[in-house]
Amino acid sequence: MNEYTVIFQPSGRRGKIKEDTNLLEAARSLGVEIESICGEKKTCGKCKIQVEEGFFEKYGVDSKVDHLTGWTKDEQRMLTTAEKENKYRLSCLAHVKGDLLVFVPEESRGGQQVVRKKAGKLRHKPDPALTIHYIEMAPPTLHDPLDDFLRIKNALKEQHGVDADRVDILCLRDMTMTLRKADWKVTVFLWQGEIVRVAPGKVETYYGIAVDIGTTTVAAYLTDMKTGRAVVTDSKMNPQVIFGEDVMSRITYAMQHPGAGLEKMHGAIINTLNEMIGNLTAEHMITREDILEMVLVGNTAMHHILLKLDPQFVGVAPFPTAMAKAVDIKARDLGINIHKSGNIHVLANEAGFVGADNCAVLINEEPYNSEEMVLIIDIGTNGELLFGSRKTGVVSCSVATGPALEGAQIKFGMRAAPGAIEKVEIDQETLEPRFKVIGKAHWNIHIEEIDAKGICGSGIIDVVAEMFRTGIIDKGGRFNKFAPSPRIRKEPDTGMNEYVLAYKDQTSIGKDIVVTQGDVRAIQLAVGSIYAGAVIMMRELNCAKVDKVILAGAFGSHLNQFSCLIMGMFPDCAMENIYSVGNAAGDGARLCLINKLKRKEADEMARKVRYLELTVFKDFERVFMKAMQFPHMEDPFPTIQHVLNEIPDWKKIVKEREAEEKAKAQ
Amino acid sequence: MNEYTVIFQPSGRRGKIKEDTNLLEAARSLGVEIESICGEKKTCGKCKIQVEEGFFEKYGVDSKVDHLTGWTKDEQRMLTTAEKENKYRLSCLAHVKGDLLVFVPEESRGGQQVVRKKAGKLRHKPDPALTIHYIEMAPPTLHDPLDDFLRIKNALKEQHGVDADRVDILCLRDMTMTLRKADWKVTVFLWQGEIVRVAPGKVETYYGIAVDIGTTTVAAYLTDMKTGRAVVTDSKMNPQVIFGEDVMSRITYAMQHPGAGLEKMHGAIINTLNEMIGNLTAEHMITREDILEMVLVGNTAMHHILLKLDPQFVGVAPFPTAMAKAVDIKARDLGINIHKSGNIHVLANEAGFVGADNCAVLINEEPYNSEEMVLIIDIGTNGELLFGSRKTGVVSCSVATGPALEGAQIKFGMRAAPGAIEKVEIDQETLEPRFKVIGKAHWNIHIEEIDAKGICGSGIIDVVAEMFRTGIIDKGGRFNKFAPSPRIRKEPDTGMNEYVLAYKDQTSIGKDIVVTQGDVRAIQLAVGSIYAGAVIMMRELNCAKVDKVILAGAFGSHLNQFSCLIMGMFPDCAMENIYSVGNAAGDGARLCLINKLKRKEADEMARKVRYLELTVFKDFERVFMKAMQFPHMEDPFPTIQHVLNEIPDWKKIVKEREAEEKAKAQ
Repeated sequence: MNEYTVIFQPSGRRGKIKEDTNLLEAARSLGVEIESICGEKKTCGKCKIQVEEGFFEKYGVDSKVDHLTGWTKDEQRMLTTAEKENKYRLSCLAHVKGDLLVFVPEESRGGQQVVRKKAGKLRHKPDPALTIHYIEMAPPTLHDPLDDFLRIKNALKEQHGVDADRVDILCLRDMTMTLRKADWKVTVFLWQGEIVRVAPGKVETYYGIAVDIGTTTVAAYLTDMKTGRAVVTDSKMNPQVIFGEDVMSRITYAMQHPGAGLEKMHGAIINTLNEMIGNLTAEHMITREDILEMVLVGNTAMHHILLKLDPQFVGVAPFPTAMAKAVDIKARDLGINIHKSGNIHVLANEAGFVGADNCAVLINEEPYNSEEMVLIIDIGTNGELLFGSRKTGVVSCSVATGPALEGAQIKFGMRAAPGAIEKVEIDQETLEPRFKVIGKAHWNIHIEEIDAKGICGSGIIDVVAEMFRTGIIDKGGRFNKFAPSPRIRKEPDTGMNEYVLAYKDQTSIGKDIVVTQGDVRAIQLAVGSIYAGAVIMMRELNCAKVDKVILAGAFGSHLNQFSCLIMGMFPDCAMENIYSVGNAAGDGARLCLINKLKRKEADEMARKVRYLELTVFKDFERVFMKAMQFPHMEDPFPTIQHVLNEIPDWKKIVKEREAEEKAKAQ
Repeated sequence: MNEYTVIFQPSGRRGKIKEDTNLLEAARSLGVEIESICGEKKTCGKCKIQVEEGFFEKYGVDSKVDHLTGWTKDEQRMLTTAEKENKYRLSCLAHVKGDLLVFVPEESRGGQQVVRKKAGKLRHKPDPALTIHYIEMAPPTLHDPLDDFLRIKNALKEQHGVDADRVDILCLRDMTMTLRKADWKVTVFLWQGEIVRVAPGKVETYYGIAVDIGTTTVAAYLTDMKTGRAVVTDSKMNPQVIFGEDVMSRITYAMQHPGAGLEKMHGAIINTLNEMIGNLTAEHMITREDILEMVLVGNTAMHHILLKLDPQFVGVAPFPTAMAKAVDIKARDLGINIHKSGNIHVLANEAGFVGADNCAVLINEEPYNSEEMVLIIDIGTNGELLFGSRKTGVVSCSVATGPALEGAQIKFGMRAAPGAIEKVEIDQETLEPRFKVIGKAHWNIHIEEIDAKGICGSGIIDVVAEMFRTGIIDKGGRFNKFAPSPRIRKEPDTGMNEYVLAYKDQTSIGKDIVVTQGDVRAIQLAVGSIYAGAVIMMRELNCAKVDKVILAGAFGSHLNQFSCLIMGMFPDCAMENIYSVGNAAGDGARLCLINKLKRKEADEMARKVRYLELTVFKDFERVFMKAMQFPHMEDPFPTIQHVLNEIPDWKKIVKEREAEEKAKAQ
């Protein structure tokens, strides 16, 4: 039987594969993971790959010969016309008939990434600040002794209609020899009029990197500048966590260690960025020198530490930043190891605590173009809110959600990592819970397999919402002493109520996982602060109703939207109009990488968004106190009224049950 | 008798001076050299100083009290109205009557500077690219939480009507604390929209540095950006001379030592620039950090080595530069130690061998605005010519003068340094010479004092011109065998003719200094190449006459204009229309430092000047050969026709004398 060479990109793994093997099997045999949810039942359509035929042309093999079996009906059905045109196949349905080079797109790759900062699909076509142009020139003669720069400039203008007006000095130093060695046929990398690289011959594909520097997680996207596709994604913990978990503690660290503190934190993030650039480029088999531009976003503190700007004033009222406007800076001036002439674009901060990451969310979601009133909630270690429409304009505010939503200050709180309870349901009759643990495929059906370690943010929102829906806690968040469950008990030391979510034998920590009265309070504070912010914003825009809610951020994308509504995290909104958009900040950064108009829009909109400093509002405290108490008990939430109507009145039920049992006993 | 404190700027020397001492004496007693040609005869007007009264105001002393004796009639006569208004006095006529701070302007300072690259007076008012603006701001509040950058930007716009659109990252890092420590009262240094320095309080005076990097000499001017005055000047040898005396040998060095050769020569000039910056700033009692911008010029090879660009193609036809356009670059990217956010502006090259230094000459002399036809000759190691007028436009060319004019390839040639014969006259009757040696006050009257070492460029031009004028050599440059002088003899080894300029007892080298037939040929070649260039340029512009000749460059300023005309260095021109303008390249650089429109003009005019590559002209060789032979013998030079008419016909004279003596003897 014949064997053929099959190569999988971007990992570059290769090997001999027997004829007629399907590509999914071929991938597995070479250690390449391709997502397949249906288990080769040909129903999920997730195992897409892309056939790269250029490979064969390059080596002279006739590319007209099809090295895969023909199209199947299932593929015809499950692939879009665009995908078919771009030579996508389903790997479980295409069988090897010759040598192949295939590309496994990001969305088809397997792996156990816990920090799921996946890149979304971008809504704008590429029109990047960094462009490439292949030109051919005649060499200089005595009758045409133009300098090299002007010769390139003229060729760019004549052959592509683009203008170059300067050249980076480090690029200029290599240019003279490159032009001559490449026989005056080169590809020019042009960044806003500046020539930043002159590469020999014709370059077809080029890449940039977008990075969202979160307080906790750094997510980086190696992006194909011509398609906008994130070809490789990498996430890492922000190494600054050793200097402080949240923004305020890092600012404090910088203040307590003048000079050295900022230096250390700055150095740490630069090192991490350099590692990630190494990972991303190596995985795609390109080099650091192939990267000519990066776009970075982060909150105001991350922004300042990244640029080595004193962050202390960002941390105290009135929270002025050193620079709100977008910053363009040479990578070398920041110690970032990409091409020596490469540039870094840092998106604009908005105001106060609302940083460049929110600006990225803003231009990704474009509330200013919406006909409806949109509320965007980006929940990280802080909560940043945007609200408005094309008509009203957009206002923003920042609310101190505190660390509860990330698992801190919760008795059994933990980060969203394997072992964390991430989803919870409580039975309205028995008050018994069901839950799902990160890293386990199923809900807690098989006790022996559960091994819960704690509760992460989405789990804690779920459980508190469910406790309210089932009457375990009342509208003020207090435990209902009539709720009939052995899981409701008093903590021996404090005498405070608690609810047992997982008994010892379901955990890997040797003790029961409980939700305490204190935990409920912490969550009420966090959720109430968001609701109060939204109320102030609605009042500011004279608007009585939210048409659409967008939950952004890695955290937001894991939240149960119904739980959020029950908790009163935001004003009433039809369930079908509540969206989770994943890492919108990362997507916005990527958008600015590949589209210069969006970049301009970011700088403009950051200035146009009207920032509301909530502490300036005299009645904010009152609004906030009211919001803490499951706000829909006072404000109208028609969408969930039917659910609220069904909250059990345990006092009455218990009395009825007692009466019933008494009647039975009699 | 009373004593008062007198301080001399810029040296900062100070001391107690007795009442009624004149300032010239006071200066001498403190080791400050002030030029005084007339020896205090009150006739030369060279010993000007400027009284700085600000000093007294600063220390609370009433500045209305005159601390010098009153005006004298001689001063009234010798000082201009502007000088009087600016508190200039003649130091030999003003006597001390109280504490004083006086400034010794550049032109009044003594010293034995041999490389006289003096700064000229600039013809344009300051309107620099780098400006300073004092602003006062209100600190941020919750109701006005603008970022620091925007606060500055708004203040600049409101208080001065200027626009800032970015800030250098290294400046930004200090900005936050400076603003707060200075209580929001700062001086902003603005460079073409970029904030490059934010200094606390009000800064009144600021400086830039202009540098002319010659192949042999580097001249640097510390310049007051508000007045355009060169407050301190420094000159140094170009350290690259150890790698090769002229441009071509340095290019060869770079080619023979790939990488390392360029690296070394680049490093050498950067080190020298850094030393000179240190000297200039220390002498004026400011620091490197006070310098925010420098303008550099040099020929194309110096330009390339400065920027660490491969110079090899600049050295071979068709001589294309890597970049002709002006370059703006951060000083830190070039390793130049001025303020960390400071900028370097390198003027545009024109084309071929015609570099940024000639561009500086161009915009300083402005032939393109002239109604007359102007010929500008900048003689360095190469000769660069500009010719044209407002009507015709300007053409340029570069001629290979060779090193003869700088003393190389001349048997007793030497640089313009102490001991060099710099001026020569030959008596038309006796053929005996008179000459002047650099470092000696008088012509060779006192034999015991002469100590000549050799002949420098201006001397060799003089002597060859005089040899022609006195008939020692003929129109082809050959020695006239009839010329009756014991100084004309045959060199024993070669049998070639030579003329003894200085006998052994007038020299410090233990032998006669002679001018050989070979020396005459070398000078004819150098001078002929310039004339030939001028002829081609005139033909190109259809122009039969030169109205004005400008000799630029340190060398040009020492030439005897009459000798040049006799030699036929340039076409006929009335003596009163031949000017020496000193270091016009340095002046042009300084002009671009203090005037941004001139900078723009430089970039535009460098492109508009039409470069003539002489080797392209088929008959250039013929024109050149003809030019070598004292061109006015064939072309009409009416201006000097009367001199030419008087050249002795030694054959005839000797015969007549012989006949006379015969007659006497009979």
